[in-house]
Amino acid sequence: MSDESRPASTNVRGAEYPRVHPDGRVTFRLYAPEAQKVVLQPGGADNGLGPGPYEMTRDAEGNWTVTIPPAVPGFHYYWFIVDGAMVNDPGSETFFGYGRQTSGIEVPEGAEAAAYYQPQDVPHGEVRARWYWAKTTGAWRRAHVYTPPDYDANPTKRYPVLYLQHGAGEDERGWATQGRMNWIMDNLIAWGEAAPMIVVMDCGYTIPISTVPGGRPDMATYVRMQEAFANLLLQDVIPMVDATYRTLSNREHRAIAGLSMGAGQALYTGLTHLETFAYIGSFSGGMREGFDPQTSYNGVFRDPAAFNERVRLFWLGTGTAEPRAYEAAHTIAKAMDEIGVRYVLYESPGTAHEWLTWRRCLRNFAPRLFK
Amino acid sequence: MSDESRPASTNVRGAEYPRVHPDGRVTFRLYAPEAQKVVLQPGGADNGLGPGPYEMTRDAEGNWTVTIPPAVPGFHYYWFIVDGAMVNDPGSETFFGYGRQTSGIEVPEGAEAAAYYQPQDVPHGEVRARWYWAKTTGAWRRAHVYTPPDYDANPTKRYPVLYLQHGAGEDERGWATQGRMNWIMDNLIAWGEAAPMIVVMDCGYTIPISTVPGGRPDMATYVRMQEAFANLLLQDVIPMVDATYRTLSNREHRAIAGLSMGAGQALYTGLTHLETFAYIGSFSGGMREGFDPQTSYNGVFRDPAAFNERVRLFWLGTGTAEPRAYEAAHTIAKAMDEIGVRYVLYESPGTAHEWLTWRRCLRNFAPRLFK
Repeated sequence: MSDESRPASTNVRGAEYPRVHPDGRVTFRLYAPEAQKVVLQPGGADNGLGPGPYEMTRDAEGNWTVTIPPAVPGFHYYWFIVDGAMVNDPGSETFFGYGRQTSGIEVPEGAEAAAYYQPQDVPHGEVRARWYWAKTTGAWRRAHVYTPPDYDANPTKRYPVLYLQHGAGEDERGWATQGRMNWIMDNLIAWGEAAPMIVVMDCGYTIPISTVPGGRPDMATYVRMQEAFANLLLQDVIPMVDATYRTLSNREHRAIAGLSMGAGQALYTGLTHLETFAYIGSFSGGMREGFDPQTSYNGVFRDPAAFNERVRLFWLGTGTAEPRAYEAAHTIAKAMDEIGVRYVLYESPGTAHEWLTWRRCLRNFAPRLFK
Repeated sequence: MSDESRPASTNVRGAEYPRVHPDGRVTFRLYAPEAQKVVLQPGGADNGLGPGPYEMTRDAEGNWTVTIPPAVPGFHYYWFIVDGAMVNDPGSETFFGYGRQTSGIEVPEGAEAAAYYQPQDVPHGEVRARWYWAKTTGAWRRAHVYTPPDYDANPTKRYPVLYLQHGAGEDERGWATQGRMNWIMDNLIAWGEAAPMIVVMDCGYTIPISTVPGGRPDMATYVRMQEAFANLLLQDVIPMVDATYRTLSNREHRAIAGLSMGAGQALYTGLTHLETFAYIGSFSGGMREGFDPQTSYNGVFRDPAAFNERVRLFWLGTGTAEPRAYEAAHTIAKAMDEIGVRYVLYESPGTAHEWLTWRRCLRNFAPRLFK
């Protein structure tokens, strides 16, 4: 390539495509010599690559290419459609989203803005794959557990715990890959902004998906999933974590947050279990429909003064370029204003329903915990 | 489905295809309504799914299917070719192989034979993602580090270390996903067969792939990669591991092994650094061409008696159904017989150049370490 485009940081080793141009345009390429039609499909309605689909053009060798207009910085899912078949890009890493392994591309923002989620020359924690048997689901499950940089060096020190959930279609791998949570936490801890803490990431899917007609859960199913997830977390995950890691195992040292579907799970689990959590965060999420301060979430908002005293942080975050989540966050804020419940509302400028919003949410949320 | 086939264990949640039949046949399916031609392509010449490619047949809804003859048990890479484009199966997890994310399927063997690589109700270790800066490559790298079940509970205990490498086209993720090394080690330790040990898995690719013409390294490149990998391991990885984990940091408590390309790296690094390693294992690998006991590997075989005294284990493994590796292992064994060097030769019955061979290699190799 004679221009100044560069292979994306999400490419597999040695892959020349996709390439990001200095102005944010992206060139995609796929080899499909016998295909009749190839298009690039960004994942999701608010995707920073634009809505698409983008038609691709075949060259003499059978490579199909397209260069799209400047993309919004951040992490964006995408795939190709080759004669009607959904196709991952062999040049990109895959990421678990949409309930399957999906191509993703990182469109960089400026080095300064990105510093907090890049690896820096600071002490690094670990993300540990921890298998455990879950009684509530009757299956082996894997949690990913972030331990802070000084964890092994201080074998008697105990740490607070943040339970942090992914979104719909994703799983326990999302936060440490798409979300880069380990680097965010490493940096915030090194910079003195966040307390050293353990972060536990589990999979929010706790009931068989195959029972959901059509594959996409309806609202009633999401509610059942919230309840099943709360049972999993309270009866399996938290006891396992407290038995396995050096935790401070009380509500004052336990937080819960999640993004999108995971925000709904964090709100449900946290708000109905204030005996277990003192910090609750909703990243691009909303409350259950039909909010009623007298009855919703087991009536936890019935006594706002008691709520304000008991809850150390009620945190809401949204990107400004994701209309549904933006409205949902402001709807919660308005309801809280009306009854006098304290909260923090964070807005990520210009970002959509994707992981750059949630990296920024974590960057704003984590420093407010356990202080 | 009215038959007794079951979704493969490697499927993503809820995916009904691919399905494995009780007799080992496998049914694959892909939705590609506008495609002209779809085939199933097993990965690699000795793949347990058979050589393929297998033509798939379209139904009225646009689903293409094929049922293949009984497959060899084990883990097999595969993909579809849709009108000339390489396509992953949205129903399967992906695994890093062939230098890209690739679909894979687990074809089960009997529960008894598989017990050692399944999760059992025994204490579980962790696989930890550890980022570090490598001076020799000038980049951030990720190692995966297995710590045994009792590691955190014994904060003063120190452990021996096995350095364990993946094969060509793969990376540091291979052993803990395709290889199931964590469950193998958990079980061997619980059953009293292997000593509790730390296992370090890094990426064997240490020089830019894009410098290799045509994408597939030639022999000279593999040799350069062996040397670069040895430098990485000795100058970056081992010092980092010894500084970060509670290791027994001497040759008597350090082993190195790898599979295929990684076997070549383990042989080169181990045999030229007996001051660092006392245990060396080659899984489905071969020595460098033109073996000469006087000069090869810096002349380490020049004094067989000294070699036998210094090397605690020289271990060779191969499947019986992978002709090239089988011949390579026996070629080494014959050369060692001729000069009187002790070794162990293990043969995995009926398995090919795939991960079931390497799980069995680890199962045989690990119990011989650090005793």
